[in-house]
Amino acid sequence: MSHNSFGHLFRVTTWGESHGPAIGCVVDGCPPGIPLTEAEIQVDLDRRKPGQSRFTTQRREADEVKILSGVYEKDGRQVTTGTPISLMIWNTDQRSKDYSEIENTFRPGHADFTYEMKYGLRDPRGGGRSSARETAMRVAAGAVAKKIVPNMKVRAALVQMGARAVDRSRWDWEEIGRNPFFSPDAKTAELWADDLDRIRKSGSSIGAVVEVVAEGVPAGLGAPIYGKLDQDLASAVMSINAVKGVEIGAGFQAASLTGEENADEMEIGNDGKIRFRANNAGGILGGISTGQDIVARFAVKPTSSILTPRASVTRSGENTQVVTKGRHDPCVGIRAVPVGEAMLAIVLADHYLRHRGQTGTP
Amino acid sequence: MSHNSFGHLFRVTTWGESHGPAIGCVVDGCPPGIPLTEAEIQVDLDRRKPGQSRFTTQRREADEVKILSGVYEKDGRQVTTGTPISLMIWNTDQRSKDYSEIENTFRPGHADFTYEMKYGLRDPRGGGRSSARETAMRVAAGAVAKKIVPNMKVRAALVQMGARAVDRSRWDWEEIGRNPFFSPDAKTAELWADDLDRIRKSGSSIGAVVEVVAEGVPAGLGAPIYGKLDQDLASAVMSINAVKGVEIGAGFQAASLTGEENADEMEIGNDGKIRFRANNAGGILGGISTGQDIVARFAVKPTSSILTPRASVTRSGENTQVVTKGRHDPCVGIRAVPVGEAMLAIVLADHYLRHRGQTGTP
Amino acid sequence: MSHNSFGHLFRVTTWGESHGPAIGCVVDGCPPGIPLTEAEIQVDLDRRKPGQSRFTTQRREADEVKILSGVYEKDGRQVTTGTPISLMIWNTDQRSKDYSEIENTFRPGHADFTYEMKYGLRDPRGGGRSSARETAMRVAAGAVAKKIVPNMKVRAALVQMGARAVDRSRWDWEEIGRNPFFSPDAKTAELWADDLDRIRKSGSSIGAVVEVVAEGVPAGLGAPIYGKLDQDLASAVMSINAVKGVEIGAGFQAASLTGEENADEMEIGNDGKIRFRANNAGGILGGISTGQDIVARFAVKPTSSILTPRASVTRSGENTQVVTKGRHDPCVGIRAVPVGEAMLAIVLADHYLRHRGQTGTP
Amino acid sequence: MSHNSFGHLFRVTTWGESHGPAIGCVVDGCPPGIPLTEAEIQVDLDRRKPGQSRFTTQRREADEVKILSGVYEKDGRQVTTGTPISLMIWNTDQRSKDYSEIENTFRPGHADFTYEMKYGLRDPRGGGRSSARETAMRVAAGAVAKKIVPNMKVRAALVQMGARAVDRSRWDWEEIGRNPFFSPDAKTAELWADDLDRIRKSGSSIGAVVEVVAEGVPAGLGAPIYGKLDQDLASAVMSINAVKGVEIGAGFQAASLTGEENADEMEIGNDGKIRFRANNAGGILGGISTGQDIVARFAVKPTSSILTPRASVTRSGENTQVVTKGRHDPCVGIRAVPVGEAMLAIVLADHYLRHRGQTGTP
Repeated sequence: MSHNSFGHLFRVTTWGESHGPAIGCVVDGCPPGIPLTEAEIQVDLDRRKPGQSRFTTQRREADEVKILSGVYEKDGRQVTTGTPISLMIWNTDQRSKDYSEIENTFRPGHADFTYEMKYGLRDPRGGGRSSARETAMRVAAGAVAKKIVPNMKVRAALVQMGARAVDRSRWDWEEIGRNPFFSPDAKTAELWADDLDRIRKSGSSIGAVVEVVAEGVPAGLGAPIYGKLDQDLASAVMSINAVKGVEIGAGFQAASLTGEENADEMEIGNDGKIRFRANNAGGILGGISTGQDIVARFAVKPTSSILTPRASVTRSGENTQVVTKGRHDPCVGIRAVPVGEAMLAIVLADHYLRHRGQTGTP
Repeated sequence: MSHNSFGHLFRVTTWGESHGPAIGCVVDGCPPGIPLTEAEIQVDLDRRKPGQSRFTTQRREADEVKILSGVYEKDGRQVTTGTPISLMIWNTDQRSKDYSEIENTFRPGHADFTYEMKYGLRDPRGGGRSSARETAMRVAAGAVAKKIVPNMKVRAALVQMGARAVDRSRWDWEEIGRNPFFSPDAKTAELWADDLDRIRKSGSSIGAVVEVVAEGVPAGLGAPIYGKLDQDLASAVMSINAVKGVEIGAGFQAASLTGEENADEMEIGNDGKIRFRANNAGGILGGISTGQDIVARFAVKPTSSILTPRASVTRSGENTQVVTKGRHDPCVGIRAVPVGEAMLAIVLADHYLRHRGQTGTP
Repeated sequence: MSHNSFGHLFRVTTWGESHGPAIGCVVDGCPPGIPLTEAEIQVDLDRRKPGQSRFTTQRREADEVKILSGVYEKDGRQVTTGTPISLMIWNTDQRSKDYSEIENTFRPGHADFTYEMKYGLRDPRGGGRSSARETAMRVAAGAVAKKIVPNMKVRAALVQMGARAVDRSRWDWEEIGRNPFFSPDAKTAELWADDLDRIRKSGSSIGAVVEVVAEGVPAGLGAPIYGKLDQDLASAVMSINAVKGVEIGAGFQAASLTGEENADEMEIGNDGKIRFRANNAGGILGGISTGQDIVARFAVKPTSSILTPRASVTRSGENTQVVTKGRHDPCVGIRAVPVGEAMLAIVLADHYLRHRGQTGTP
Repeated sequence: MSHNSFGHLFRVTTWGESHGPAIGCVVDGCPPGIPLTEAEIQVDLDRRKPGQSRFTTQRREADEVKILSGVYEKDGRQVTTGTPISLMIWNTDQRSKDYSEIENTFRPGHADFTYEMKYGLRDPRGGGRSSARETAMRVAAGAVAKKIVPNMKVRAALVQMGARAVDRSRWDWEEIGRNPFFSPDAKTAELWADDLDRIRKSGSSIGAVVEVVAEGVPAGLGAPIYGKLDQDLASAVMSINAVKGVEIGAGFQAASLTGEENADEMEIGNDGKIRFRANNAGGILGGISTGQDIVARFAVKPTSSILTPRASVTRSGENTQVVTKGRHDPCVGIRAVPVGEAMLAIVLADHYLRHRGQTGTP
């Protein structure tokens, strides 16, 4: 079952609410002997951390991760032991405020109504369990996952904000660390800054598209039918807050292609190895990795917390208007970039172990 | 684990190859006492069956389903007993032909290469396990799933073929049974007939987009974080052969929307009940159903089996050209319509039981 | 979830009722490239088959297994492909008789009452799903499992029938194939023959204890806490019909031992390898295999189908007397021997793949 | 997968080492709206806590549980929200000592050797993950589980220590809270005090048998074949450290019974309800609860940590002698009593939710 767990052999279980004392996760099934420190995990967490630019929420969280189990010293280094790795972050900036309004009103676009329908109650403070704060633990678990498949490199970038997409001819992976949008295209990043300033100041919000790419993934990961690599990747990405769509390789564009255009032809390269002339498949055929880059994209809806009043209803069944004040990301797609990266890493780590289990390779 | 199983409380395990003696599935966890006959399942199977028009493969399969377990008479009707339901279809039209060419060549766009990389061997006859023939068992299992959520109605339609989409102003669910494309728009169906005749005669193929809609789904199905309804729906749909993208509600369009445009406002209707003014969310907020229609779309790539020669390589590492003769669907998206419908039904049945398990409702 | 499935990476799902058209199982996760024929599986099935002596039920089932998927030719041999292996046996000796009495009465010691309480109905013909007939598929799946761990040998024997136990000083594995009880002690087998003739003729039945032993299991299989090898072994064995107890190594005797007596001391053997001086642990410490023989025992209750009238009640709530006529095993423990063997093999195959997945060895 | 998780709909994941900073668990799938406080959980933890008499280890742990997520105020009470409940206990009495001897030697009867074989390293401090300290989290999770099945009462008692068993004619549940052994028989408790003083002073240890009983369990819990209630109970109990055997109802005694003796006859009671005349089945038939008491017993081996030198080997392959100094339980069976109780509660809570999911009752 998977209410709050993800993965099979490499399995992540997260817990915690936005305004509870802490959030955390348990990473189970990690191979033993892998060097792992808090500092390494912190690097990824810091990329997702709020409050780093004017374009993300001003909540100030140190997001300092603690490793509470599953590591020990070997040969002078701290390594994984093969037992569960418990990671925790104390919540430090949960402002005490009056939640009675949120408690009694269903904010449009939020999970208020559905949690209430499902459970009969909910923790309204900062969205409770439905808060994007949970994604910090995905990033932490992803930092562990990244160490499992040898030579694998997982990266992600924001490729569209609102209607404006990056120019792929200017794609530069180095660029994503240099601007507050994880944009691989410096010029588009500048335009986005203007766009988002305008949106932010008007109290509005905007959607986005994120692209994740994994290099160095060996051929053979995945499984036919219900353990497809792209299936688990879609599941992973769609589990991220606010995501409304996911595509692999050519994705929805494939609908408009002919068989001739879409089929990635193969040939023997100069090095005597098989290579593909294109990657419409996004590195996955029949649910199994080809050895090419794994390429996926996902759409993130605009933040539902906006200053413009929206019609809604109260728990007691009266019409009302909702305005969401407070600290919010005008484009949650930005901080979804390291989260998408983490989820891809988790899926690949899991399938790497599953493949090794069934076939004994590599 | 889920190599060949899908779902949790309502769980489907499929088996079988395109050209083996039979294909089948085991449906586990079905509630007891539900009336179920082979004839009812057959209705859905017949909608997916090949060879029903010139627009689908000419393979002639009766696709007659047999129920081998899990049912018994009660009060004069055959009902489920709560134990596993085994469904089977004998393969009857696996033509004996020479597979040595396919056996030694990796067809571009097919799973030949990746199965070989994963397993070191594969059953090349008709694609073996990677054949779309497996989807017949999804439809059979889906026919069972449709009976579980009271008053739920799941339907699907082809909404785009190649670059041509249906005109939504002409949408008529009655129409999907009247044309060979499951088109909800009669006029577009006529244009598609011309399009596909041209493609078929040239030995080419084309992609498509399918939309699935579930009405009558109670609010509260789904679970936060890793048991999200949309997550499992994405997983279900992406597990279908040739699917390259999936979106919920506004989907990728949400990336271009502002928070004001995207938030589905709520109000108290004349009947005193809560209603939504829009459904950009596709009936799911925070991973949990709102009570609105569940709406998803998925992109199907063009069939990789085409008559135009494509560059490829042999198992022994030589360059070659591949032409795929034989019986193929020029647009696999068409027969994916009942398959998508079935997968949505399976996801909803599973979550209905899961929700009832945790909360005791309804 | 595991209503009707067992195992994780090596996963068996069974289906079918005693008097339905067939019984079957799906074996998922089997490594590819393993030689597998119906004849090999049949060898184990024939050891469990009813009607082979006067000491087992006279139901006459050929129990001929069919492989319906998951195998293909490679280098002139039929091998597994890594995709699901579907195994099926047609039921051929389900006598048509009147089940109305059983349908309306709860037989003491049978699952009649509890199935009815759970599901509100049941298939009464031959016990339906609760029939020991299901165990044929465990044996079939176990025959596959036995081929996965290199050099592993799994065997089982009947070590007690009623109050009479074998004399371990006379233990001879060769003997188990020579008597109708799978007794490792020829002399006790003779005494059992007399015992059971008397019980059988009086229309009674008797319990038994089975011991299963796996040799050649590498050290390191299992997992701490909730994936313990002995835990999964206990689960596997307790899932067999009529089993009421299971123990590992010294088992219940360990309660009476001191720490000095119980601890299996270790030493470096003449070959320079670590060896244990005893095996009270049954080859498992901390849930993980030591490399010694895995040793387990389980208790099987007497068949509940007996000729002596027993007090019971009808579905409509009246007191009644039940006499179970028909064909039954006077000691179901006998045919449980190959079943226990199969379940141990399945657990070990699963843990072998899980261990390989997490650690990369062997 | 279940390396460190147990259960399906009610699912417990534990983490932590004996001498790490903390131990904890995540309880997922708990129904919403159940009142839950730290104080309630603490009651059960205090029953398991070390150092409460001279008969258990002198390690001094406050074992104060913290609830970190999954609860919120409703109508003035703290209740579960349906989201994951994270429970944590800080380790406070991990004495700093020199572990180099344990690190380089495999203690007989301990998991030292097998963890090393599996993972290539281990945390030697206090047994690391293999420490019985993990069972504190089972008790904490069990305290939650006990609140799920209405009117259910789960209790456990020590029924045998060494060769000495309680006199069942003196069984008094009230007594278990009055002596340091959880004995239901005051007189035997006195004799055990003498026995264990002698054993403790000699630096030895002794095994034990625990009996767990659940009253008020509705009929219908469990599932046929691989979701049997007794199977999951066996799995739960065998996962507890040092357990070597488990039996249900008559258990191993059933092997010596005839069908007449073993079958629990049924009748209509004076209240018009069905009742059983005996409970050899331990409340479970065909894997499903009958509505009678669920009765199970398990054998606990003697503590492997003893003062008498035992032969063993070092990691570098030399013969050595091991004496285990430090703080240990001379009979770990005693503190296993609340642990067994907790595991039974967890199994029943899980099956209660599973049953409700599939059938909609109760």
